[in-house]
Order: sequence, then C-alpha cells, then structure tokens
Amino acid sequence: MIYFDNSATTKPYTEVLDAFVKVSSDYYGNPSSLHQAGGQAEKLLSQARSQTAKLLGVKSSEIVFTSGGTEGNNLAIKGTALAHKGRGKHIITTTIEHASVHNAVKQLEESGFEVTYVPVNAAGQVSSADIKKAIRKDTILVSVIHINNEVGSVQPIWEIGQMLQGFPKILFHVDHVQGAGKLPLDLYDCGIDLCTISGHKFHGLKGTGALFIREGVNISPLLSGGDQEGRKRGGTENVAGMVAMAKALRMSLDLQDKKSAHLKQILGTIRAGLEILPEVTIHTPVHSAAPHILNFSIEGLKAEVFVHALEQKGIYVSTTSACSSKRHAPSKTLLAMGVPARLAESAIRVSLSYDNRLEEAEILLKAVSDTAIQLGEVIK
Amino acid sequence: MIYFDNSATTKPYTEVLDAFVKVSSDYYGNPSSLHQAGGQAEKLLSQARSQTAKLLGVKSSEIVFTSGGTEGNNLAIKGTALAHKGRGKHIITTTIEHASVHNAVKQLEESGFEVTYVPVNAAGQVSSADIKKAIRKDTILVSVIHINNEVGSVQPIWEIGQMLQGFPKILFHVDHVQGAGKLPLDLYDCGIDLCTISGHKFHGLKGTGALFIREGVNISPLLSGGDQEGRKRGGTENVAGMVAMAKALRMSLDLQDKKSAHLKQILGTIRAGLEILPEVTIHTPVHSAAPHILNFSIEGLKAEVFVHALEQKGIYVSTTSACSSKRHAPSKTLLAMGVPARLAESAIRVSLSYDNRLEEAEILLKAVSDTAIQLGEVIK
Ligand SMILES: Cc1ncc(COP(=O)(O)O)c(C=O)c1O
Ligand SMILES: Cc1ncc(COP(=O)(O)O)c(C=O)c1O
Repeated sequence: MIYFDNSATTKPYTEVLDAFVKVSSDYYGNPSSLHQAGGQAEKLLSQARSQTAKLLGVKSSEIVFTSGGTEGNNLAIKGTALAHKGRGKHIITTTIEHASVHNAVKQLEESGFEVTYVPVNAAGQVSSADIKKAIRKDTILVSVIHINNEVGSVQPIWEIGQMLQGFPKILFHVDHVQGAGKLPLDLYDCGIDLCTISGHKFHGLKGTGALFIREGVNISPLLSGGDQEGRKRGGTENVAGMVAMAKALRMSLDLQDKKSAHLKQILGTIRAGLEILPEVTIHTPVHSAAPHILNFSIEGLKAEVFVHALEQKGIYVSTTSACSSKRHAPSKTLLAMGVPARLAESAIRVSLSYDNRLEEAEILLKAVSDTAIQLGEVIK
Repeated sequence: MIYFDNSATTKPYTEVLDAFVKVSSDYYGNPSSLHQAGGQAEKLLSQARSQTAKLLGVKSSEIVFTSGGTEGNNLAIKGTALAHKGRGKHIITTTIEHASVHNAVKQLEESGFEVTYVPVNAAGQVSSADIKKAIRKDTILVSVIHINNEVGSVQPIWEIGQMLQGFPKILFHVDHVQGAGKLPLDLYDCGIDLCTISGHKFHGLKGTGALFIREGVNISPLLSGGDQEGRKRGGTENVAGMVAMAKALRMSLDLQDKKSAHLKQILGTIRAGLEILPEVTIHTPVHSAAPHILNFSIEGLKAEVFVHALEQKGIYVSTTSACSSKRHAPSKTLLAMGVPARLAESAIRVSLSYDNRLEEAEILLKAVSDTAIQLGEVIK
C-alpha cells in the first residue's frame, strides 16, 4: 500500500501510540482531582503543554488543548466574535479556507456578523494589500490559512502580520493545521494572535489539537464548563492524547529539520513526471508552495474514477479535502483560483509525509500514466 | 491503591484500550476519504455508531459523536439556543447541574437569554411540578441532570418528560454523564430530545462522548466544518476513540445487569459504616440515589485535608466535582440542598465502579474512622 493522502490524515507513530497507552493505563486520574492520581495526570498534562509551547516557540500559558483543528478554528473565530462583538462585527477571511473556518464565519453571518472573503490569485495566494483594503473600522478578526489543504499554496502570513501591526485591535488567526511539522511558522514574529494545530495531521491521534492564544488576547470559551484550560475550554482533559500529540509534534519537527529535502525531492519527482504527461495540468504553484501537497488534473477524467483506479493499484490519493470529498463537488479552492469547473472536477491531490519513499513517487507516476491511458481509452 | 473517585474519571478497560490501539494503527484512514483506507475507517465508525445507538435503545442516525460530556452539554444547550432563538429565549434548568450545563446557560444569559434555575429539595431532587411552574411562552429548552455528580441524587426524568409532553415545542435535554452504565434511562419513554454521555466515565477514553439528538430535533452545530456527523459536528472523527467508547458502553451495561447488586452492597456497607460514626452527616439521599456515589461530611474537618489524609493510606476520594475541586469552594449542589456552608466544606465524595471490591469498603471505613480521630485530635 502506498499512502499519499497525508493531508487527510496520517498514520500515528508507534512511539506516539505507545505513549498514549502508557498514560491511559497507568496515569488515568483526572488532572483536576486533588489526590496523587490526579496530581500525576496534571503533571503529565502540564509537561505536554510546556513541550508543545516550546516546540511552537511560545509560552505554556498560551496553549489551550482542543479536540482537533475544527474545534481550534471554531474556538478562535466564534470565541473572538463573542468576546469582541461589542467593538465590531466585521471579519475578514479568504476564499480558500478549510470548511471549519468557512462554515464558522458563515454561521456568524446568520447572527449579524459581516464577512469579507478576500479572493486569491491564480496561484491560490491572497495578498496582504487586498486584506488591508478590506479592513473597516468595525473589523475585529482576520483569519487566514497557512498552507491551503487542497492545493498546498502558502499564504503570506508574515506580510499580513506585519501589515496588521498597524491595526492593533484586529486579532489575527492562522489555521496552521497543514503547516505544523511541514513548514516553520514563527508565531510571535508573524504577529499571530490565534493559531490552530491538529494532532492527527502530524502522526498524532485523531481528536487531539491545540489553539495558541497569545497572552493578553481575550476570547470567550465555546465549550464552557469547569476550570480547565484557563477557563477557555472546559471538559476533562484528554491527558494521554495531549502527551501523544506533544510527542508527535516533537518527532515531526525533528523530521522537518532532517527530511525536508527528502520530501521536496519526492514531490519534485512527482511534479516533473506529471509535467511531461500530456493533458496534465498542475494546480499547485511552483513558488510559495507546501513541501507535501501536489494537486493536478488530467483533462477529461473524473477525479473520483481516477482515485478508485489508483486504489486498485494500491495507491491512496484523494480528490479534494477529505471532509468534502463525498459531495463530489469541484474543489472550492480551485474554483477560487479561476480553474474552470470542468478541469477542477478532474483534480487529484497527492499529499506526502516523511514516511514516503522516492520509489513510491516512481510507482505513482507509472500508475498515473497507465491509468490515464486506460481510462482515456474507455472515455474515447 | 483503592480508587474511589470513579465519578471524576475511570480506568479504561484493557479491552477498550486494545481496541483503540488496533483501530489507530491498522485503520487510521480518514473516514471521509474515498479510498479503501477511508472506507474501512468509515465502516468501523458506523459500526460504533450503531452499537452505541442500540445500547441506548435509539437509532444510529440519532447519535452524534463528540469529544466528551462538556461538548455534548454545550452542543445540546447552545445548539438549541442558536437554532430556536427566534421562537423564544427562555431556558429552564436546575440549581444542581454540572458546570458544563451551568456555565453554558450562564454564557447564554450574557447574550440575552433568560434562565430559570429551579431549586431542589433537601434530598437534592427537583420536582416536575416546580419545573412546570417555571414554563413560559418563550421557553425553548429544559435541561436536567440525571444523576447529580456531587451527591448522587437521581432526578425524576420520567415525570419531567411526561409533563413536557404537554409542551411539545420545548426541547428536553438530559445530562446522563453519571448515569450511563449505572442506572438505566429509557430515552424514548422519557420523552428526551437530547442526551449527553461521556466515554471516560464508564471506562472508555478521555476525549470521547456522544450526544443523542432525537429524530426531527433541529439544533445548530457548535463546531461547524465538514460534512461529518450529519453536519451537527465537524472535524475528522476520532474513529478509534468511538470504537473504544462503544465497547466500554457495552461492557458497562453488561456489568450493570450483572453487578448492580454488588455495587449496592458496597455502597450500602459504606453507608452503614459511616452512619454509626459520630459527627458524620450523609448527604446522599436514601431513596432515588445513584448506586455508585456517596457524599458525607465529618463536622469540623476540612474536606481537602481529609482527602490528603486518606491518600496517605492509599485511598483516593474527592471533595466535590473534580473540575471545581481546585477552587476550594463548598459544593454548589450541597448549598442548593440547604446544607450549611460550614458542613459543605467538609464534604467528601466516594464514587464506585464495578471494579471495586467489598473489602475496599471495609478498608475505607477503617481509614475514615482512624483519620477522623487523628485529625480530630489535631484540631481539638
Ligand atoms: C487546513 C485545515 N484546517 C482544519 C482542518 C480540520 O482539522 P480536524 O480534522 O482535526 O478537525 C483540516 C483537516 O481536516 C485542515 O486541512
Ligand atoms: C454530570 C456531569 N456532566 C458533565 C460532565 C463533563 O464531562 P467531560 O469531563 O467528559 O467533559 C461531568 C464530568 O466531568 C459530569 O459529572
């Protein structure tokens, strides 16, 4: 099996799963309990928090553990909306956000908020200048994805952050779910106030995540309850899950240092091989692109049929973002980039992890080419 | 070690953890992915859903998986508020709810909702008649806990449900977090619209839970995002966690059938042993009480000191609900029952699971008596 769907989810590292089991069975106390079993769990949770903070280059007190990227994005956006609606009800985002950002702001529109969706260029990139133009007196939040999950375009987070220094009251949220462990992002230097990560995207476990909330930034909780997570997120903490996530993040950042070139080589091989195939259009930009995502279309072939044909050969790729893939609608991001619907309907996403090998790229290329010919015959 | 803090959290069953590991390592695909790895994960998720539904006596389509009790309660309450605010902005609940219900409605009060907190009697029980009296034209939701987590009093859910049949537009939410696997609750028969459970309270894993949403009941999502969970809860599903929870629920309901008498015997032994100790007041009612919770005070002894003293003897109990225990404030539930603050400050909660043994009750009683004498000497 060749797994090229790592933007949908990744295989948990063995060490990560081992840590989860160890904590779940030996330190199952509730971190809020006053006795020793609680104290031990609390200590592990706090270690996971400081480890996560250190890896992200921020303070422990700035990390709120969540159940994943969707919760992080919703907490950042709705939590800001709730806490700051007295100051203004305008939010700026882009046309290429993940559904968990897009639908969170859509839901706020129903409650009287106004949202500006700043468009992207043909390379799938928003410009800081366009975001600046969208700013109003009542803007309270700018939310921009770091690496787009469908095509892998990287957004100018640093430039946007610099520009927003001129608007100190506007909070800046970044969806770093696809970036964590793949592309460095300096949260302080970029002037980020809120930043989302999700454990299962870097070989942690599903149902784990974190939201960075910069010191001094006030947002309302979405899950109100007990005194956990600085009262920003109630609920008995998933201690084992957070220990596992911290470990996965450390391992992924280690690999980011050591295997970035390797990842680029695999992706470069795939890109070069696809470029010489007739009727292939590559949607992922050459510059400011993620090291692990490549999105392309083969004119005239339906993406879904193609995914299943590759699956027959033991290769797993995807059409669009996993969570929208059953809609069979063309990728929102591609349409926003100006790709014609007809071509967008053929789009295939290949997404790598540090576990992939160069040989797998060769096998993929041969399979794509063979499949294109086979399917091409059929539809002729 | 004797663990008598099972209302705070429980030790995951070995089989539950094994199932989690198996699914996480062998079926790590994203259930939304179109390829086979996704399909297998989707199949497991759907099995976990139908198993959970069957165990709760409801339909698969009525189960939304969540990250725990706090999320379930917040989704039920805020999701109802958001979807039905056009019809009315009045909510009824009790004075003895868990923080995740209490603080969810408190937060709604800040957004213009009105909340009636119906009081309880000295036994910690609300009456259906009092709830009926609180109903107004603009009431959209009644939220009542099944088993109170601090004293173990059981609320008249069936009576409330019957009474609410006369008000078909009012939704009925029940926090069944302490009840699941301990005390049967017929969701349909009780006329319940929304019902919360949490995996780690019945030997599942932390960070797992479910909300029952009766067919035809419309609530807004709290975590908006992809198309998961019938669009009621976005985010990549914690497949392994949900398979584990379904297994834990099955095992717990099996034990509920087989070991209820055993649980009652342990709790009865503890109650009888405490009753003969001088200066002990038992707060848990004799009738309509949970089979696994006993709350008592020893006049004049601070609960926290007592918890630590028992801990020295290897026995883990708690003061109040875990998530509020670090506040060192007396239990809200006890105060609502009319227990004087002075006595409430001494309150200790003992909470059992089917794993506890009768000998442990004897050891606890001796330890309580010894500790009371030791500490009594000190404070004299
Ligand atoms: C860019 C991006 N943001 C957010 C999410 C949501 O994360 P999760 O599935 O952990 O809720 C995903 C993936 O699903 C993503 O790719
Ligand atoms: C009655 C009750 N409701 C809700 C919760 C919250 O559940 P969780 O910790 O899974 O968020 C708890 C326990 O913490 C509880 O005892």
